[in-house]
Amino acid sequence: MSKNLTKREEDYSKWYNELVVKADLAENSGVRGCMVIKPYGYAIWEKMQAELDRMFKETGHSNAYFPLFVPKSMFEAEEKNAEGFAKECAVVTHYRLKNDESRPGKLMVDPNAKLEEELIVRPTSEAIIWSTYKSWVQSYRDLPLLINQWANVVRWEMRTRLFLRTAEFLWQEGHTAHATKAEALEESEKMMHVYADFAENFMAIPVIKGLKTESERFAGAEETYCIEALMQDGKALQAGTSHFLGQNFAEAFDVKFANQEGKQEYVWGTSWGVSTRLMGALVMTHSDDNGLVLPPNLAPIQVVIVPIFRTEEELAAITNVAHELMGQFKSLRISVKFDNRTTQKPGFKFAEWELKGVPVRIAIGPKDLENGTFEVARRDTLTKEIIAKDGAVSHVSGLLEQIQKDLFDKALRFRDKHITEVNSFEEFKEVLETKTGFVSAHWDGTAETEEKIKDLTKATIRCIPLNRKEEEGICVFSGAKSVGRVLFAKAY
Amino acid sequence: MSKNLTKREEDYSKWYNELVVKADLAENSGVRGCMVIKPYGYAIWEKMQAELDRMFKETGHSNAYFPLFVPKSMFEAEEKNAEGFAKECAVVTHYRLKNDESRPGKLMVDPNAKLEEELIVRPTSEAIIWSTYKSWVQSYRDLPLLINQWANVVRWEMRTRLFLRTAEFLWQEGHTAHATKAEALEESEKMMHVYADFAENFMAIPVIKGLKTESERFAGAEETYCIEALMQDGKALQAGTSHFLGQNFAEAFDVKFANQEGKQEYVWGTSWGVSTRLMGALVMTHSDDNGLVLPPNLAPIQVVIVPIFRTEEELAAITNVAHELMGQFKSLRISVKFDNRTTQKPGFKFAEWELKGVPVRIAIGPKDLENGTFEVARRDTLTKEIIAKDGAVSHVSGLLEQIQKDLFDKALRFRDKHITEVNSFEEFKEVLETKTGFVSAHWDGTAETEEKIKDLTKATIRCIPLNRKEEEGICVFSGAKSVGRVLFAKAY
Repeated sequence: MSKNLTKREEDYSKWYNELVVKADLAENSGVRGCMVIKPYGYAIWEKMQAELDRMFKETGHSNAYFPLFVPKSMFEAEEKNAEGFAKECAVVTHYRLKNDESRPGKLMVDPNAKLEEELIVRPTSEAIIWSTYKSWVQSYRDLPLLINQWANVVRWEMRTRLFLRTAEFLWQEGHTAHATKAEALEESEKMMHVYADFAENFMAIPVIKGLKTESERFAGAEETYCIEALMQDGKALQAGTSHFLGQNFAEAFDVKFANQEGKQEYVWGTSWGVSTRLMGALVMTHSDDNGLVLPPNLAPIQVVIVPIFRTEEELAAITNVAHELMGQFKSLRISVKFDNRTTQKPGFKFAEWELKGVPVRIAIGPKDLENGTFEVARRDTLTKEIIAKDGAVSHVSGLLEQIQKDLFDKALRFRDKHITEVNSFEEFKEVLETKTGFVSAHWDGTAETEEKIKDLTKATIRCIPLNRKEEEGICVFSGAKSVGRVLFAKAY
Repeated sequence: MSKNLTKREEDYSKWYNELVVKADLAENSGVRGCMVIKPYGYAIWEKMQAELDRMFKETGHSNAYFPLFVPKSMFEAEEKNAEGFAKECAVVTHYRLKNDESRPGKLMVDPNAKLEEELIVRPTSEAIIWSTYKSWVQSYRDLPLLINQWANVVRWEMRTRLFLRTAEFLWQEGHTAHATKAEALEESEKMMHVYADFAENFMAIPVIKGLKTESERFAGAEETYCIEALMQDGKALQAGTSHFLGQNFAEAFDVKFANQEGKQEYVWGTSWGVSTRLMGALVMTHSDDNGLVLPPNLAPIQVVIVPIFRTEEELAAITNVAHELMGQFKSLRISVKFDNRTTQKPGFKFAEWELKGVPVRIAIGPKDLENGTFEVARRDTLTKEIIAKDGAVSHVSGLLEQIQKDLFDKALRFRDKHITEVNSFEEFKEVLETKTGFVSAHWDGTAETEEKIKDLTKATIRCIPLNRKEEEGICVFSGAKSVGRVLFAKAY
């Protein structure tokens, strides 16, 4: 099975596209730019959702649900905020189909069912949510509003790729409202930390926390916090953003509150989101030429047991042992699958579970029964060991924790090896062309320089790292003064 | 607070509309026919989702996600199946807005961005899912496909009511494919039982299991199983349906498989769904003139503790006791809220939590501290008792179970009292006008009679109950022979 997968070195992009489909994560649908998330891929997304949802609730947020459609006029209200992407979007103009009299069996849009006002399928929900908050907020007692929504959104992307860029995608969007600027700033920074914690400790993806430059910011934001990850091909991927919206949306939708002194003030806002794009980051951070590599936290199946047998008696004896094991795994909440298909050979099964990234494989043959042993294989390192049956479950449980940790450490080493400090534009270009990864360089702080560098190299400023050291320097491009390095990279 | 709520006897419909809004379940949005599900309402929906999801997985189903949009041509393929509601739907015709040059600050649909083929916002997903299954199914080994989707759907309803009938609503839709007719029939019947189990044991709503008549069936189905509930005003509400689709969608989308003999056969299908409509059923089954009454299983807050105090010292002493209680409740996974607001009086808080349907309220005052007691109030019966502090938590835990059971029993008694056997059309009409509820009557089995009865009385056949007794009789309308009674009612 894995033999059919393109090697990463050959064509990374092709490897990715093939892997997403072959590992049963997702596929393109009959609708342009929209994907089908298959059960195996969706099971991974559900694990992300459950953990994020837990983290959001632990930090005081509640879920709610707002309409899919946004009337055109609401976009006009936030026009200055939404210039970025709001215009490439799906527009509903009619509300009925009818039989096409001239073509039997065909349907047509009923021209008599034209909407008075067009509805936009939400590309993001600031407009509809802030227009709702207007009636929810009267006094400082109604604040803060800490709300999250799990939803589908649509942006009419011309060039799409499974998970990374699709016309419809799934995400969560937090939208909060606060009485003070300080509180809203704190919230937006806090959610960036929540995302970083999730990415690193749950997905085993190291990220750099930082601020976006003005040109890379969300159009309605005064500050955008982000987490940036590095993929195996040396390209960066924005894994989550958290926006401090200032009073922009409050002004656009007239959301005011009476403060403790009874004076009317505009509310301060934040919004923050991560999406099914994280599935792409997951694949491109850990997987290899044999297929997916899943961190145990995200694996729908954490352990697969493959019986090696020739006769039905052998299978029966192995099945007994396997069931015993499964009971023990389940009591530890470790998800385990016994692949007892008789239609496939062990080699086929090994390749299939490798392709699907199951972290640990246990093979049990007649000899193992004799010796009281199992063969345990790690997906991430492709190494095998023979372990004793006694204590096997606790051994594997420890192994899963180790794999989770090792995957993060490995990705961190790779990432750190691919951050290169440069002090001239020649170096800058050379690193981007050869070593790739993040280029840490002084920048003069102007959008003009940022734009020129982008035109010349396709590299953008991924972020101004929060933990950067103060360091006087000279912009690699303009030679003007700089107070610290920023991270450039080509990005997804 | 509750004083402002219309009484059920006065105007049941108004009571419902007011309660949904005042109890913070949902509200109408700025988008015609679309609702906002508020955090408190959404928390209830999340509990329903979690339990249903657990039940679906326990019965072997996996979740997946399919596109929001369905190309018009896919509807044409299933045209014969979709005649029912597919035509009243949101149609996307364009994919871009642009600035309206003639009206500064305004947006317009870009006429150059017209889609070649219109996209329909899914009213249900049979078309898009069966067009996907075509490539997923080749051999009997690929079957059964047992898939569920949690999603939003849109049906362009002209008259909408919160939860009961909205243009956009949330639901789950199961779509399964099987090798044999028997297996698909078994699946559709099984899911009806899952729904009934959920409604009765989780939501405390008694339901009647039955089959729809041909006229009331989903257009693409050969058989529709349903669960029917009875609301307090004597109107029925269809709470869930499970369809046996025969080979209809397999034929429409050419989904064939090679059977064990290698012969090509069409696949057999089912689909089944419940929606946010269940929120409406929940409200209309249990609530009263003081507000919501929530079964403990569905209550976001199961126990609220209200301190009765005059001084800060009293509040501090009560807080100590409350925190002790809360720790004990949490260890039993009972959700508890300590309402220590100093901005509101106890009476206000009592009314508010009554309105929001919190099953148990514990009031603690200085006297209780002296005596080692609490005052415990049940929301469903509005009764109070004084209990000893020792053993209070296990008492309340038992009380929550009792309330869950009592709510079901009460609803069941009401429902059973409102099933009336009639043997003439005069009786039939009289019951519908006076006692309301389900009318159990003989029917000749023809769509013609069904239609005439509907025209004359607005009552429809809710179902042919699965457990009806064989009984020869005479149709109340036509006088023709009948082999058993069916249930008529006016319905939501």
